[in-house]
Amino acid sequence: MLQEDEYYMKQALLEAQKAFEKAEVPIGAVIVSDKRIIARSHNLTETLNDTTAHAEMQAITAASIALGGKYLTNCVLYVTVEPCPMCAGALAWAQIKRIVYGIKDEKRGYHKITPFILHPKTKVTSKILAEESGFLMKKFFKDKRN
Amino acid sequence: MLQEDEYYMKQALLEAQKAFEKAEVPIGAVIVSDKRIIARSHNLTETLNDTTAHAEMQAITAASIALGGKYLTNCVLYVTVEPCPMCAGALAWAQIKRIVYGIKDEKRGYHKITPFILHPKTKVTSKILAEESGFLMKKFFKDKRN
Repeated sequence: MLQEDEYYMKQALLEAQKAFEKAEVPIGAVIVSDKRIIARSHNLTETLNDTTAHAEMQAITAASIALGGKYLTNCVLYVTVEPCPMCAGALAWAQIKRIVYGIKDEKRGYHKITPFILHPKTKVTSKILAEESGFLMKKFFKDKRN
Repeated sequence: MLQEDEYYMKQALLEAQKAFEKAEVPIGAVIVSDKRIIARSHNLTETLNDTTAHAEMQAITAASIALGGKYLTNCVLYVTVEPCPMCAGALAWAQIKRIVYGIKDEKRGYHKITPFILHPKTKVTSKILAEESGFLMKKFFKDKRN
């Protein structure tokens, strides 16, 4: 499981890198169904001028299109940073089977403000390639300050 | 203020009616900036097969496009039913100035699960044309059961 999780998280990290190169907060996501990646996305809030364009939101929409159905009960989301309450709320509606994330977001993560927001059946795994996810985030905010 | 709120809520109700006619959960929204409606939307989760296609989410995206900026600090959202945590999370990111809603959603509304999710500067007014909003919702769920 860990090896598999790291494989898919690396794919999410590639997406985060794309966001970084566009001067977006570097967060990437993939959604996996039956061991197949059915959605890849990265944060585009600046590019699209839209606060709802988080990686997870786009991934949910793309996965729903790929599956032809709005419930993601057989899917796993891999995302480099802990989802915010908006994205966690969306993941609850989608009834996603499992969420795997990299680094915790101590300020904006769902666990701080909305710990009971997810669907009761959703399993969560954290700290998968957290160091790599955190490195990109730190680099982004450091570059921004300079 | 009440008269103005009722005027814009009627516009949101027209959107909710459109959702009803498409067999969608009948929720409608408009976003107003400087007394001008810059976004109109209704719930399209079934039509688009996408749990993120709530009226409010679409309205935020449309308003951001109309304004050319992702912050809605000068905008008022009118929505016929209390926003869910996902939508409230999105409205927090957008730093919306004010939210006016019709009927409370006792089961899925943000106040139950995530009472502190909104931006601290966002003002909230509830129960504007609540009866009309509730009538549409009740009719929808009654028709669905029959």
